[in-house]
Amino acid sequence: MSHYYRLVVSCPDRVGIVSRVSSFIAGHGGSITEASQHSDLQVGRFFMRYEILSDSIDMSAEALRDAFAPIAREFDMTWALSDTRQRRRVVLMVSRESHCLADLLYRWSSGELDCEICAVISNHQDMRGLVEWHGIVYHHVPVPAEDKSAAFATVHRLVESAEADCVVLARYMQILPPALCERYAGRVINIHHSFLPSFAGAKPYHQAHQRGVKLIGATCHYVTEALDAGPIIEQDIHRVSHCHTPADLVRFGRDVEKAVLARGLRWHLEDRVLVHGNKTVVFA
Amino acid sequence: MSHYYRLVVSCPDRVGIVSRVSSFIAGHGGSITEASQHSDLQVGRFFMRYEILSDSIDMSAEALRDAFAPIAREFDMTWALSDTRQRRRVVLMVSRESHCLADLLYRWSSGELDCEICAVISNHQDMRGLVEWHGIVYHHVPVPAEDKSAAFATVHRLVESAEADCVVLARYMQILPPALCERYAGRVINIHHSFLPSFAGAKPYHQAHQRGVKLIGATCHYVTEALDAGPIIEQDIHRVSHCHTPADLVRFGRDVEKAVLARGLRWHLEDRVLVHGNKTVVFA
Amino acid sequence: MSHYYRLVVSCPDRVGIVSRVSSFIAGHGGSITEASQHSDLQVGRFFMRYEILSDSIDMSAEALRDAFAPIAREFDMTWALSDTRQRRRVVLMVSRESHCLADLLYRWSSGELDCEICAVISNHQDMRGLVEWHGIVYHHVPVPAEDKSAAFATVHRLVESAEADCVVLARYMQILPPALCERYAGRVINIHHSFLPSFAGAKPYHQAHQRGVKLIGATCHYVTEALDAGPIIEQDIHRVSHCHTPADLVRFGRDVEKAVLARGLRWHLEDRVLVHGNKTVVFA
Amino acid sequence: MSHYYRLVVSCPDRVGIVSRVSSFIAGHGGSITEASQHSDLQVGRFFMRYEILSDSIDMSAEALRDAFAPIAREFDMTWALSDTRQRRRVVLMVSRESHCLADLLYRWSSGELDCEICAVISNHQDMRGLVEWHGIVYHHVPVPAEDKSAAFATVHRLVESAEADCVVLARYMQILPPALCERYAGRVINIHHSFLPSFAGAKPYHQAHQRGVKLIGATCHYVTEALDAGPIIEQDIHRVSHCHTPADLVRFGRDVEKAVLARGLRWHLEDRVLVHGNKTVVFA
Repeated sequence: MSHYYRLVVSCPDRVGIVSRVSSFIAGHGGSITEASQHSDLQVGRFFMRYEILSDSIDMSAEALRDAFAPIAREFDMTWALSDTRQRRRVVLMVSRESHCLADLLYRWSSGELDCEICAVISNHQDMRGLVEWHGIVYHHVPVPAEDKSAAFATVHRLVESAEADCVVLARYMQILPPALCERYAGRVINIHHSFLPSFAGAKPYHQAHQRGVKLIGATCHYVTEALDAGPIIEQDIHRVSHCHTPADLVRFGRDVEKAVLARGLRWHLEDRVLVHGNKTVVFA
Repeated sequence: MSHYYRLVVSCPDRVGIVSRVSSFIAGHGGSITEASQHSDLQVGRFFMRYEILSDSIDMSAEALRDAFAPIAREFDMTWALSDTRQRRRVVLMVSRESHCLADLLYRWSSGELDCEICAVISNHQDMRGLVEWHGIVYHHVPVPAEDKSAAFATVHRLVESAEADCVVLARYMQILPPALCERYAGRVINIHHSFLPSFAGAKPYHQAHQRGVKLIGATCHYVTEALDAGPIIEQDIHRVSHCHTPADLVRFGRDVEKAVLARGLRWHLEDRVLVHGNKTVVFA
Repeated sequence: MSHYYRLVVSCPDRVGIVSRVSSFIAGHGGSITEASQHSDLQVGRFFMRYEILSDSIDMSAEALRDAFAPIAREFDMTWALSDTRQRRRVVLMVSRESHCLADLLYRWSSGELDCEICAVISNHQDMRGLVEWHGIVYHHVPVPAEDKSAAFATVHRLVESAEADCVVLARYMQILPPALCERYAGRVINIHHSFLPSFAGAKPYHQAHQRGVKLIGATCHYVTEALDAGPIIEQDIHRVSHCHTPADLVRFGRDVEKAVLARGLRWHLEDRVLVHGNKTVVFA
Repeated sequence: MSHYYRLVVSCPDRVGIVSRVSSFIAGHGGSITEASQHSDLQVGRFFMRYEILSDSIDMSAEALRDAFAPIAREFDMTWALSDTRQRRRVVLMVSRESHCLADLLYRWSSGELDCEICAVISNHQDMRGLVEWHGIVYHHVPVPAEDKSAAFATVHRLVESAEADCVVLARYMQILPPALCERYAGRVINIHHSFLPSFAGAKPYHQAHQRGVKLIGATCHYVTEALDAGPIIEQDIHRVSHCHTPADLVRFGRDVEKAVLARGLRWHLEDRVLVHGNKTVVFA
């Protein structure tokens, strides 16, 4: 199996960026297997992602970072260079709906998601059996409605001690406290069960049924302090009709949620999602 | 070409409705070529639509209506029986965007929409050539921003004198006055260029671009007094990405709008859309 | 939870069928919660499906069948009346690809598929752990390439002894012998990993990649003696591009296969699929 | 309105291509507004497309081509550099089905397709009125079944004298002779009314109905001597069911055909389609 360095860059747009970066890579013998660029002409910003065969490069990721740093400074880049041999560490959070969790665990166990799943945190006990069968640690952290601060302090500590790169809210029906959102900005992924910005908040399928829409959807987004308003990574929909009850919408929605979250997480893990402001560039 | 009677019924749900109606039709020798039923168990209401070969029935639409009336009374039905030999009379309204109008005119001229297009009303002159080439009357009714009442009085009079069964707002960028909405309730069809309830109101594609959604859509709905809030007939979407500018969204959106409006209008003309409260049953 | 009788009928089309059947149901007080009809005007055949609240009927399924039999004879009907309290018995068959099996087991365990899963039969041992964790019997029946007859005799015996109503080939990469196909005609469901009739036979994703198609698909169909040629129940597709390798197509395909098979099986279990010749009527 | 140079390249893959090309562009001050690359690792070939603001470059397209030629030779490139100020010259061919033609003419007249439509050639007179209303020359070239050679000689001469860059078969129900296919290889675009490779040849919607498929499609491809077997540019589908007659499939199909052909042609005109062997790279 081949390994890769992934270089992800965003910077003010100007002539010569690609030339400089690609010449740097070529100068080290780097074989680029996938290259994506985007110029946002409205805001004057440039985004790029290179996937480079690590065997083709004559140095370690660490050394490559050092060598690249001066170019990054010159072009005022926000950037990262990752090595696919370092698998991302992921913590999953879930309440009582199992479909997204079961789907992610299946994809992970069958090799479709390239990451470590360090732990599952839940405010309920329901998923313990499923999670432990996969050989993953299960933390039960009840979140009492009257005072959630102690619970979230525990959650925060568990995420820290797992050295998580990424937290996935796989239908975790609690609102994370601002401190946690901020600490892991751009690294907490949520699945919302509506086609945002429609039907933010609670019981979106019932809202959708009430309004009589002909399509329902799901939205995978980064969590920010503003509820259901963070940068959107992926969305998809399912057609419905007058025949369908709210229960049918919930059932169809489960499949859309699973698919949208799995795609969004995969892209995140592959460094395909670049955030700028409240929007994303997705090099899918 | 065969002709049909179309019987459309909605009434409180109870045992025996289908039996009574189908026995009535069979008793007159009626050959049912298409039958659709729906029971809304939440609100306890029953909906049905029968398409009956008119040659198989031994009486005129008028006589059939008289014969059916006692059953309708007994079951407290909202109902209609139409004869496909009576083509619906449609008035189209448009501003300066031609795509929906051109699409409907093409479908109509190629026999895909079974109706008479009696007139096109516009607040601009732009579409006159296209419309008159199709042999259709074009009424230019400017709508001055400062006082629209005289213009809408003219519009109202033109619609009345066309004996319109149905008015289609094919990107008519004006809000109809309440009196007109009420007079033609359930018979004015609008195309809104967003996936409602997201992005109601003005410039929806720019709102969508601003929010960074990954899908844009269009919504065909009946017009009510509440802006963009009437019963939804049909919706569809188009996938977009960070690559796309607001101009691209507008371009993709045109194709979705055309398709959604054409489907919605076709279903309306074929008596496939039954309104109940603010929702529709669509026997597509 | 409510229970239902499901009446499924197909017969030569003529005036009066709906009247007779619906009057029979109404005469027994039957409350119809869902009704679907279809007249195939080309072949002159009528199809219908009624879902009737069993509590609303004054007799057992057995008695209702006896009472309905004369009507069925009069109209030359192919028909069945099932009782949702009798859960269908399903046998799953699988080789080494787990995605369809895991998906069906998840849906079943979460209550989405209303059936008994009596056994899983496989020509490999790979899935034993997953299956037994769900509390289901696992039969390992190796199928030697040189002589498969003994193996298929065992399979046949296992299916019989499970008293299976339905056999699902959830990526079982063997061709069933004609005797088994015939014995369970209309009750063996296969998922083929292409958009049939394109790419029948082996390695369809590689065939698709070779041809450079822009969409790949999957097909759920009833198994007949003719390979990949039985009546189609459901199909769906996924968009691909030049970026995607055969391995990517396989990965996308897994999601389409899972979805298509799950829908097809659900509809089959709910008596929504009526076969006529080599085609299906699906009252979805 | 901005103008662009478009550089399209395909060559054997190796380290340093992007570096060399992007440095060349940057060296001339070129501002790249859109960049796409693809490495086909299976066949070892590299593909790229750059869109460069022509005002940012200090030389004409001609001079830029001369300057680039040595690099192209060094890397053994198949390449082209076009200038968007030179609009492509397109000839449309049609038989009696108007939907694709009318759709392309509408898109062209509303500015959505950036090309000159030099002429329409048809073996029938039906479309003359529509075409001439758009101010385009209409050539009626009947194609007698018994001997088509004289007709195709005329077609060939008309295409040559129009100095066409591209020929679009917008439902032209004749098979072009090999000489014409070869002369305009990679520049003749056809719309086939099925989801190829299913249902090649005549009456695909009837074949589809006969097989009982649940999705129908359309395929836009380059014409080669092998019937319906050339490189695929774009495909799409529409869901159908047992309710739909062959006539319904034809009607749904028209909308898919229009959409697929319009997308394929647009991408071709924007130099987004690169052919390699019998497959395409589409930088959409």
